[in-house]
Parts: sequence; C-alpha cells; structure tokens
Amino acid sequence: MKTRAAVATAAGKPLEIMEVNLDGPRAGEVLVEIKATGICHTDEFTLSGADPEGLFPAILGHEGAGVVVEVGEGATSLKPGDHVIPLYTPECRECEYCLNPKTNLCQAIRTTQGQGVMPDGTSRFSTLDGDPILHYMGCSTFSNHTVLPEIALAKVREDAPFDKICYIGCGVTTGIGAVINTAKVEIGSRAIVFGLGGIGLNVIQGLRLAGADQIVGVDLNPNKRAMAERFGMTDFVNPNEVDGDLVPYLVSLTKGGADYTFDATGNVQVMRAALESAHKGWGESIIIGVAPAGAEIATRPFQLVTGRVWKGTAFGGARGRTDVPRIVDWYMEGKIDIDPMITHTLTLDTINDGFDLMHEGKSIRSVVVY
Amino acid sequence: MKTRAAVATAAGKPLEIMEVNLDGPRAGEVLVEIKATGICHTDEFTLSGADPEGLFPAILGHEGAGVVVEVGEGATSLKPGDHVIPLYTPECRECEYCLNPKTNLCQAIRTTQGQGVMPDGTSRFSTLDGDPILHYMGCSTFSNHTVLPEIALAKVREDAPFDKICYIGCGVTTGIGAVINTAKVEIGSRAIVFGLGGIGLNVIQGLRLAGADQIVGVDLNPNKRAMAERFGMTDFVNPNEVDGDLVPYLVSLTKGGADYTFDATGNVQVMRAALESAHKGWGESIIIGVAPAGAEIATRPFQLVTGRVWKGTAFGGARGRTDVPRIVDWYMEGKIDIDPMITHTLTLDTINDGFDLMHEGKSIRSVVVY
Repeated sequence: MKTRAAVATAAGKPLEIMEVNLDGPRAGEVLVEIKATGICHTDEFTLSGADPEGLFPAILGHEGAGVVVEVGEGATSLKPGDHVIPLYTPECRECEYCLNPKTNLCQAIRTTQGQGVMPDGTSRFSTLDGDPILHYMGCSTFSNHTVLPEIALAKVREDAPFDKICYIGCGVTTGIGAVINTAKVEIGSRAIVFGLGGIGLNVIQGLRLAGADQIVGVDLNPNKRAMAERFGMTDFVNPNEVDGDLVPYLVSLTKGGADYTFDATGNVQVMRAALESAHKGWGESIIIGVAPAGAEIATRPFQLVTGRVWKGTAFGGARGRTDVPRIVDWYMEGKIDIDPMITHTLTLDTINDGFDLMHEGKSIRSVVVY
Repeated sequence: MKTRAAVATAAGKPLEIMEVNLDGPRAGEVLVEIKATGICHTDEFTLSGADPEGLFPAILGHEGAGVVVEVGEGATSLKPGDHVIPLYTPECRECEYCLNPKTNLCQAIRTTQGQGVMPDGTSRFSTLDGDPILHYMGCSTFSNHTVLPEIALAKVREDAPFDKICYIGCGVTTGIGAVINTAKVEIGSRAIVFGLGGIGLNVIQGLRLAGADQIVGVDLNPNKRAMAERFGMTDFVNPNEVDGDLVPYLVSLTKGGADYTFDATGNVQVMRAALESAHKGWGESIIIGVAPAGAEIATRPFQLVTGRVWKGTAFGGARGRTDVPRIVDWYMEGKIDIDPMITHTLTLDTINDGFDLMHEGKSIRSVVVY
C-alpha cells in the first residue's frame, strides 16, 4: 500500500513529506494506522545528527497512537480495530529480560530495531522508486501507516483520545514510570526534579501521584514555573538566582537532601548535582535524560559509600503492554493530566514547525494529528 | 588509670608503644579492656598521612574485641564482664538515620568522633605528661584499655575467642554485610569480586552464604587464588592474563554480566570496571573500597540508563549492636570462617610488624593479642 510520511532523508535536514510504499505485515507483525504522534527530543536528537547511531533515510517518530488495520500470521493478541500505542521498548514476555522482574528492557528485537529494520531483517518502507527507507525505534510514527511487531504494541481502551494518549507512548510513561517503577517513591518523600520540560513535568505529576511531600523543580527558565506548579511542584529553584553552590542550597531546602532526585536534562554536570543533592544514607538519584555521545558522569565514590544510590531508567521502567494501558486508564480517570502539556497541534504537512517550536523553547509537546 | 597503647604520634612514623593515662568513663560511656585487635588498611591509610582527615597524636585501631571493665552513669545496656566488640559505626537507635531502615549510618556522635574526641568534646587519653591524645574512629583499639560510648559497643557471646571475633569489628562485617545488607544478593546469583584482600575474601564468603551460583574473584596477584577458593570463589581472573579488555571478558564469563559486582580495591578505575561488568537491565555494583582523596569515579550515563545500579556500602550496611552479635553467632556455628584469614598474631610491642606485613602483601589480617 501507499501512505504519507515525513521522511528524514539526511542528518540536519528538515523532514520531507512524501508518499511512500508500505509492505503489509509479515508473521507476528501488525499494520497500524497512526492517528496522532508526539514530537520528542529523541526524534530531534537523531534528526540533528548528534545521535551516533542515527541511520538515514528513515521515518522517525516513536510517540504515537492509532488503530490496528491488519494483523500478520500468528499475531493473535490483536485484531483490526483495536486501539494501540506503539512501544519502542517492546514486551515479549518470553526473553530473559522480560522474565526478570528487575528490568523492562525486553531484548527480543533489540538488534534489528537498532538497525532500522523489522525482526526478519528487512524494512517495510520504501520510496515510490523502490529504495528502502528505514524504521526508527521500531515505531516510525511519522507515517500515517506503519508496521510493528505485535510485541511492540500496547492495546488500550477505545474511548481515549489519540491526540492525547500518544504522549503516553514516551514522555508521560518515562516521567511517571521513573517515579513509580524505577525509584518506587514512597508517600511523604522529598524529591528534586532537574529540568522542567516534557519529561520533568511528568516526573512531577508522578511524584504527586506517589504522594511525595516536597517536589522541588530546578530549571534555568523561570517561565517553566507556572506549568510545573500546576502539575504538583511545591518549590521552584532557578540556579541562576542561587547565591553560592546549588547542591548545598538544595540539600538545605530539602532538610538534608532529597529522598529521590531525577535528572531530566541530559546534562552530565546536572546529573552529578542530582546525585549529590540526594540525602546521605538513602537518597537515590535517577538519570532519565540522554547525554551527548561520549559524555561521562563523575563523582567522588564517597558519595555512594555514604549511602547514595545512582540509577537510570529507560521508558520509565515500564513494561509497555502491561503498564501503558494502565496509564491510559489513569488519564481517563483523571488521576494524571496530559492536556495542558500538549501545547501545539500540527498536521503532517506542518511537522517541521514542531521541531522549530522545540528549538525555540516554545512548546512542551507538539502533536501531529493525521 | 594507666594503660599501654601504640600511639600514632605523627603521619608516616611508626607507632610508639608507651604508657598513657586513661580517664574513666563519663555518662553514657564504658571502659573496655581490649583483648585483641586487628590491623586494618584504614589504620594504615590514616597512619600514612594519606587520610586528609587524619589527626595526630592519636591511638588508632578500630577492629577490636574485649571485656567491659566499668560503666559510666546511665550506661545501662552493659555491665562489667560483658564481652563486647567496639563499633566505629555506632547504633543509637534514636537518630533519624537509625530510624530509617534504609541506612546504618547512625549520626548520633559523628561530629565528635571525626574530631577524635568523646561526645562531650574531650579525649579520655593523655600522655603521662598530661598532653591530650586523640581517639580514632571512636574506638582506639590499639590501647589495652579504651573508653567508648555505650552506643558504640556490640555485646557478644562469651564463648567466642577474642583473637578471631575482633575481625568482625570491621573486615568480616564489611565484606559479608555488603553482600547481605547492601546488595541483598539472592540465591543463584552470579557475582564478581574485585580485590581478594581481607575485605574481598569476606565478600566471597558472604556470597557463598547467600547462595550465589558463580563467584568470580579478580586480583593481579595469583597467590590470592588458593585462599579465595577456600572461601567459595568459583572462578579466578588475573587481569594481566586476559587478552584484550577486562570488562567484556568478565561479561562473557558471567553470561552477560554479573548480577552483583563488588569493588574491594579502592581504585576508581576498578570501580568503573566493576560497574560496567554488571549485567545490563539489573546488575548492581557496590563500592566498598576507600579511594584516595580527590579521586573520582566516572562512566557513561548510558550504563545506568540501561539498568545498572551504582551503590556503596560502609561497615557493610550493618547496624552494629544488632548485626554484629549475629555474625559472631554465625562464626561460632561454623556458618562463616575467620581463622584462615588471621595469618599473623602479634603483641602490642610488635604491632609495627603488622604494618610491614601489610605493605609487603604477606598478611591477610594481623591481629594483636594483648
């Protein structure tokens, strides 16, 4: 079949909107009509050329929601008409990782996903001239139709609006999951969130959901304050307005350090500050942000010997097929909020505006509605 | 009273054996006759001058066992004749730290302990001329008699031999505790221990006690192999004999990385290797060793984002008054072994030989018997 897509033809160039060929689903695969997709910093990271593993030409996008159109042989868990959210971290429920309760990093299709192809080693996308176009993060939601392995689709309720729940495909789950799956924050905790963008805001609402007593937000941009307060932030700190070092200031503000700190910036110096502002004896610091290639975190080992714990999280520690439908329920039940974070709605034809808005710091999330 | 002690008069000088004055126990304090004391690397670290917080003159030693001689006012948990192990990490059971199940770092007397004095701000030790001599780590077990706060003494069974259980005051508890309290190793785990000295061997026997399936020991000294095997090591790796990089070799040996890795070297490059040889998705790395002043650990944050956890431990996460008596029981019941690690027995007059043996790598533990 033919479908319309925004194709990343080369690093650093705007996406090109074009018709592409899409082969039907093979065994274990599912054809999905994407109804909406968010534009995430990770798409920008790859499109910019900064991602050393970025491949071109490819169809980016990994934060979508849509409807099953056709299922391939043996894909028995889904049927046409099902509403789904694509999962860049799949959940096969059979591999060594899925069977270990400590991780969500299903490895079933990791190698081929990293190569931009389906598990059989080929791409379903091609140009009208027949040249292959690669998949991206196993999702390629910047195409109106896409093919995914069955294990990379979460079935969700049908009354949930695509243009909001697409955000659960990455940002919402990453932020909330970092709190509830990775940190396992307890009621009454004190926490600090570094970076109040699309991930940080979801960390904040995850902390509110988990019953944290103090939720400190740290950002250089004072304009982030109002929205973060809306999601549950109790204290705002602008490092530019702190006299002296930031870490002792935060330690004092949290009465000895935070029980949990979260980096949602991707800056390795901020990651260090996040660790060091965690409480001696038991504070845990969770890295969410993606650092530039080659960047390293550092600290004195004494920070760990005196009881701090340094962790990271990917996709919020969520097992997508199991956890994503629950988070959609939470949204529909009003336990979490998404709408205010979706600041801009675009069409596929104006998708490049979404990257501009991101660069200009004007958007929290831009969503493309097909 | 007067007692005999080995006094550290200045950094880098041998200990001087001399008679010293010891004031009796004040409120909440206890006078203990030390019967035996181990010589630990931490004593050496301070004596050498490398410890930036080292103070002189002081009476070092923190790994002892003895008998209560006299109790001060209000010290109701102990009576003369009780057998005790001094605790450089006390357990007051009342501070914010003791009341938090996630940590063992009781802060009740931390400040004064770091200053080499008792909680009232004064030292009990002085020269025969009346010049004060400082306490060390709140213990000063290189003196035949010493005074400690009641909260810094674990009461232990009376049939346990002092010249063996003194080692439980630091090395044994640190190594075994890192496994069972900090890492909480599960039956069937794979583990790697870096450094097969007095701590590393106890990590190994902790792993055996916890039911680990694979216990890899890493040391540059092939002579460490036999003893480590005796304590439960299943695989020995000498980095000098590995072709190529150590980390991928260890990852392969442990079928994808170890569930738990332990640094017992204090070398920050080794700490990095320990983290990076932990299993993706769930591997935890525990720093036990004390690094040189100013040294920093580093890694790519990707190591944490993909599921590895970086932790540290002090005194093996043990709450001394609660846990140390249990470990003495384990020794007496044959669940753990100590005797083969005590390679040399000295007297106070020959205590400096213990430091020489350590420098020459000839001892695992030298114990001074009074």
